Amino acid sequence: MIIDIHGHYTTEPQALHTFRDKQLAGLADAARRPASTDLGISDEVLVKSVAPQLKFQKERGGDLTIFSPRAGGMAHHIGTEAVSIEWTTLCNDLIHRICTLLPGSFVGVGQLPQSPGVAPKNCIRELERIVTKLGFVGVNLNPDPSGGYWTDPPLIDKYWYPLYEKLCELDVPAMIHVSSSCNPNFHHTGAHYINGDTTAFMQLIQGNLFKDFPTLKFVIPHGGGAVPYHWGRYRGLCQDMGKPALAEYLLKNVYFDTCVYHLPGIELLAKVIPVDNILFASEMVGAVKGIDPQTGHHYDDTKRYVDQVKGLSEQDRYKIFEGNARRVYPRLDALLKKRGKPGTHKL
Amino acid sequence: MIIDIHGHYTTEPQALHTFRDKQLAGLADAARRPASTDLGISDEVLVKSVAPQLKFQKERGGDLTIFSPRAGGMAHHIGTEAVSIEWTTLCNDLIHRICTLLPGSFVGVGQLPQSPGVAPKNCIRELERIVTKLGFVGVNLNPDPSGGYWTDPPLIDKYWYPLYEKLCELDVPAMIHVSSSCNPNFHHTGAHYINGDTTAFMQLIQGNLFKDFPTLKFVIPHGGGAVPYHWGRYRGLCQDMGKPALAEYLLKNVYFDTCVYHLPGIELLAKVIPVDNILFASEMVGAVKGIDPQTGHHYDDTKRYVDQVKGLSEQDRYKIFEGNARRVYPRLDALLKKRGKPGTHKL
Repeated sequence: MIIDIHGHYTTEPQALHTFRDKQLAGLADAARRPASTDLGISDEVLVKSVAPQLKFQKERGGDLTIFSPRAGGMAHHIGTEAVSIEWTTLCNDLIHRICTLLPGSFVGVGQLPQSPGVAPKNCIRELERIVTKLGFVGVNLNPDPSGGYWTDPPLIDKYWYPLYEKLCELDVPAMIHVSSSCNPNFHHTGAHYINGDTTAFMQLIQGNLFKDFPTLKFVIPHGGGAVPYHWGRYRGLCQDMGKPALAEYLLKNVYFDTCVYHLPGIELLAKVIPVDNILFASEMVGAVKGIDPQTGHHYDDTKRYVDQVKGLSEQDRYKIFEGNARRVYPRLDALLKKRGKPGTHKL
Repeated sequence: MIIDIHGHYTTEPQALHTFRDKQLAGLADAARRPASTDLGISDEVLVKSVAPQLKFQKERGGDLTIFSPRAGGMAHHIGTEAVSIEWTTLCNDLIHRICTLLPGSFVGVGQLPQSPGVAPKNCIRELERIVTKLGFVGVNLNPDPSGGYWTDPPLIDKYWYPLYEKLCELDVPAMIHVSSSCNPNFHHTGAHYINGDTTAFMQLIQGNLFKDFPTLKFVIPHGGGAVPYHWGRYRGLCQDMGKPALAEYLLKNVYFDTCVYHLPGIELLAKVIPVDNILFASEMVGAVKGIDPQTGHHYDDTKRYVDQVKGLSEQDRYKIFEGNARRVYPRLDALLKKRGKPGTHKL
C-alpha cells in the first residue's frame, strides 16, 4: 500500500472561493458578508473536483492520500479569530465530505482556527471536533500565524502547550506547515514554506519540548526544509549547545516527508535521515505543477525518486511508503485495520 | 592556492566589545557614550587575535581567507543609522589593519552601514571607501536589516538599485548575508542564516534583476541555504513562472559557497550546482565549532569534504578552490597578480 501523507485540497470548487471573497469583503463592509455558510456544493461537484488528484494517484501508483485543506488557503493572518474559526470549520467540513465520499482514496487531516496573537488553546475545540467527530488522523499546525512576520512565540514556548497536551491525548501528530505569506520578502512556496520547516526544526533543537511531551509527534514537510542538507550543521549546533546527539534527541518525535522534487535531494534525505523517520509524500497537486524536462516526468512525482534510491531493502521501502505512516498516524492504522488492511510487514 | 572566501572576524579583542557596549549604552544614556573611537588595540594584539584562524588555515591546507567583520555583529537593527555608520567604520578598519599586517593570509571584505528603513544608497560612501581606500574585494549585503522581521523591501526592489549600480561600477561582488536575529523564532546561525540564503535566492527567481544589472554578482553563503537540496523545486517554480531554465536564468550571476558541514551535503552541492558556481569556504571560526564524532574532524573543515567528492577533475578542483574566486572577485585576482601570483590554470 502506498500512502501519500501530504496532499492539500488545491482544486476547490469556485463556490468556496466565492464564499471566501464575501467573507473577507465583510471585514470592510458588513453588508457583503455571506448570507450563509451553506456553500451549495453537491457531492457530485466535490468528487469531480478531486479528479486531478485521483488521476495522479492512480497513474503514479498511489493508494491513499492524507488530505487536508489548501495550506496557503489557511491564511491565519487574515481577518479576526472569528473569521478563522468560520473559515476553518468550512474547509475541514469539505475535507470530511471528500473523505466520506472517497474513503479508499483520502483520509482527513485538518487545519486549525489559529489567529496571530491568539492563544493556541483556543484551537482545542476544533481539534477535538475534527478528530473525534470527523475521524481525522492528524492536523496541520502553523508555526507562524502572522503569515511571514513571525510575531508569535516559538513552538517551544509554553504558549503552545495546551494544544500539545490535546494532541498527545488524542494521539494525533501535527504537520508543522506555514500558510501563505503577506511579507513581500517571502515567496510562499519558494521561501516561506521551506523557511518555516527549517525554523521549526531549529526551535526544537533549542528547546527540550519532547521531555515535556514524550509522545508528541511532529512531521516536518518539504523534506525537512534545509535540515537534511545541513545535517552536519544541525548535529554540530546541537552538540555545541551541550544537547544529546541530534538523532537521539529529536528523531523519536520528528519525521520528514519526501516532498523534495529531484532525485539528488531524495538520495541525500535517504542517506542522512534514518529510514524510520521518512514518510512518503508528494504534495500533489501543489507547489510545482510542471514536468521536468530532464526526466520527462512531473517534478512532484516523488515516488519515482524514492523508487530509484539504491540500497533500500524491501522492509525500508515498506516503512517509507506505508509502515511509518501507520506508526506516526495511529488513528490511520486503526482505521485501516478496521477496514481489514492490517499492513503486510512487522515494524 | 586554496582560497577560503568566507571567514568572519569572530575572535575580536575585548576592546571592541567594550566599545560596542558603551556605544549601545549611549543610546539609553548619552553620558555613557564612548569618549573616542580609538580602540587602543595594538598591532600585536590584532595579530594574536587571529591566531586561531591562522592555525586552522595552516592545519587544513588553506592559503588565503577572504575576511570580513563578524556577520552576527553587524546587527543593523540595533540603534540608529549613525550608530551603524560608526560601528561599521570601526569594524571595517580593523579588518583592514589585519589584512595589512597579514597580507598573505587575509584579504578584506566589508560590512555596510545599513539600517532598517534607511535607503541602501546611504551605504555608497562606505562601499567606495572600503574598496578604493582600504583595498577590499567585496562586501557583505544584509537582505534583512531588521534582524529577523524582514520589514525592508526584497532585494529585487528598486530600493536597492543605487547600491547595485555602485557594486557594478566598482566590480565587486556582494555576499548576501543576514546578521543576528532579534526575532525569538529564528536562531541566528541555525535558522536566520539559512532562511536568509533561501529567501534571497527565491527573490532572484521572482524578479529579473540581472537583466538590469548583467555584471552584478551575488554569492549565497552556507551552501545556498536550502536551494541545492530543493533544486528540483526551484527549477520547477522558475519554469511554472514562465522564466528561462533556472541555471541559464541565474547562474551567470549567482554563486554558492561550500559552508555545508558534512560530506553528503557537499556531494549534493557538487552534483546539482555547476562547478563554475561553487566557491570554497568554511566560515571558520564560525557557527559550528565542535568536532564531528563521526569523522574525528571539525564540522567546519569543509576542505576535507570537497577533497572526498568523487568525479571532480583537477580543473574542477582548481575552480572551486581558486579559479572561481578569482573570477567572482576580480579585485582579488588583480591583487594576486600584482603579487606575482597569476593562477595556474586557464578558466
